[in-house]
Amino acid sequence: MRIARFSIDGNVAFGAVEDTPQGPVLDIIKGIPYADFELSGTKVPLSKVRLLPPVLPNKVVAIGRNYAEHAKELGNEVPEVPVAFFKPTTSVIGSGDAIEYPSFSNELHHEAELAVVIGRMCREVPRERVKDVIFGYTCANDVTARDAQQREKQWARAKGFDTSCPLGPWVETDLDPTDLTIQATVNGEQRQLGRTSDMIRSIEDLVVHITEAMTLLPGDVILTGTPAGVGPLNVGDEVAVTIEGIGTLTNKVVKRG
Amino acid sequence: MRIARFSIDGNVAFGAVEDTPQGPVLDIIKGIPYADFELSGTKVPLSKVRLLPPVLPNKVVAIGRNYAEHAKELGNEVPEVPVAFFKPTTSVIGSGDAIEYPSFSNELHHEAELAVVIGRMCREVPRERVKDVIFGYTCANDVTARDAQQREKQWARAKGFDTSCPLGPWVETDLDPTDLTIQATVNGEQRQLGRTSDMIRSIEDLVVHITEAMTLLPGDVILTGTPAGVGPLNVGDEVAVTIEGIGTLTNKVVKRG
Repeated sequence: MRIARFSIDGNVAFGAVEDTPQGPVLDIIKGIPYADFELSGTKVPLSKVRLLPPVLPNKVVAIGRNYAEHAKELGNEVPEVPVAFFKPTTSVIGSGDAIEYPSFSNELHHEAELAVVIGRMCREVPRERVKDVIFGYTCANDVTARDAQQREKQWARAKGFDTSCPLGPWVETDLDPTDLTIQATVNGEQRQLGRTSDMIRSIEDLVVHITEAMTLLPGDVILTGTPAGVGPLNVGDEVAVTIEGIGTLTNKVVKRG
Repeated sequence: MRIARFSIDGNVAFGAVEDTPQGPVLDIIKGIPYADFELSGTKVPLSKVRLLPPVLPNKVVAIGRNYAEHAKELGNEVPEVPVAFFKPTTSVIGSGDAIEYPSFSNELHHEAELAVVIGRMCREVPRERVKDVIFGYTCANDVTARDAQQREKQWARAKGFDTSCPLGPWVETDLDPTDLTIQATVNGEQRQLGRTSDMIRSIEDLVVHITEAMTLLPGDVILTGTPAGVGPLNVGDEVAVTIEGIGTLTNKVVKRG
């Protein structure tokens, strides 16, 4: 099932995305998708709503250098242990929302990533139970101020500025994430192309590694790293992250107002 | 005013700490201390309550290497720009709560820090307006798995594991933070001693730097760095952070259950 969060006429709701001959519609969800819920049968066309970030995370844990070709393109070694950092909830936006070019950077980069959405409160998850704590998958763009990242050592500003974490367009709950194409385009031109099978650490590895240290909550998100091909974003660009079996996350870059 | 958050008989409330000849009491607050509130006049002895973290942050932004002597003791340069990282809300505990020794570390360290509590939603705060967005100050312990910090490059696990962010005992709203003694003791022995006047970047500098990138929300916390003298914590130790004009934050280290 594809679960979107959206607003229409000022009301916010979750809905299940369904294809119809007249185009995709959203069947409005009664209840919260992480707990018991049912479909209301009330349907609105996808074209009439504004998509919102499909999850309300308490935290976003992101992983750096998880594709060997990407580590190499930035002159980095493949790390011996996963490189884990946080993106704050204030950085999260949905598909269609604007990425605001930060004032402290002259080198903004896109990073297309598969995002894992957590469905259950969990800590110290054994490898064989990882499947049980995953709610689904969505597309992410780990937007990065590359110059600030290199200058500031820790990445709170470079990867945590407002609008630096586009997520969406929705969460796909039925998906084998182990071998999907993942790509980024800028103004329709392909920039990144990879397969999730090229991840150095698997999703199981990452959930075990992260929850060895900290509790994850329903709606928390893990970004699993980006394949090679990262590159600049400029004001006016439209960047799109597409993952096979999920969909496309699209955001325009604007000057911060 | 000193504002504590506490539980008594299963109820959670904020209260103003007042000294009386019979010992400190909490005057229970009606409303939320960040907005309009009044004191109820209903008082409970401090000794009867369990203190909770005095704030409910959306995020904790912490600053590394902000005291020259501390940077030196770990063999680091004073950074050209502030080193900013996040501690997640799942790491926050209050005074009296246990620090759980993480399974992935053999070298846990205390780091006594002055914590700034934000009172207003803000972004791009001009230097002269920084005072207006600060609600008050509390004590923090930026508990760190030093071995994991060195191994893992980014510090999400080393400084973000559950219980790694003790805050408390309360928020002091009337305080000049520019020249206060800050100390840490372990089992009553002094380990860290410094003055907030030795910070490399002032609180104004840090708020400007952070809000240049991201929105801060009421209850968000900035940890301002630790003075020299960091050192090991072992299971069974009691660590206390005392800041002049605020009070003492005390936590015991336990084996993770």
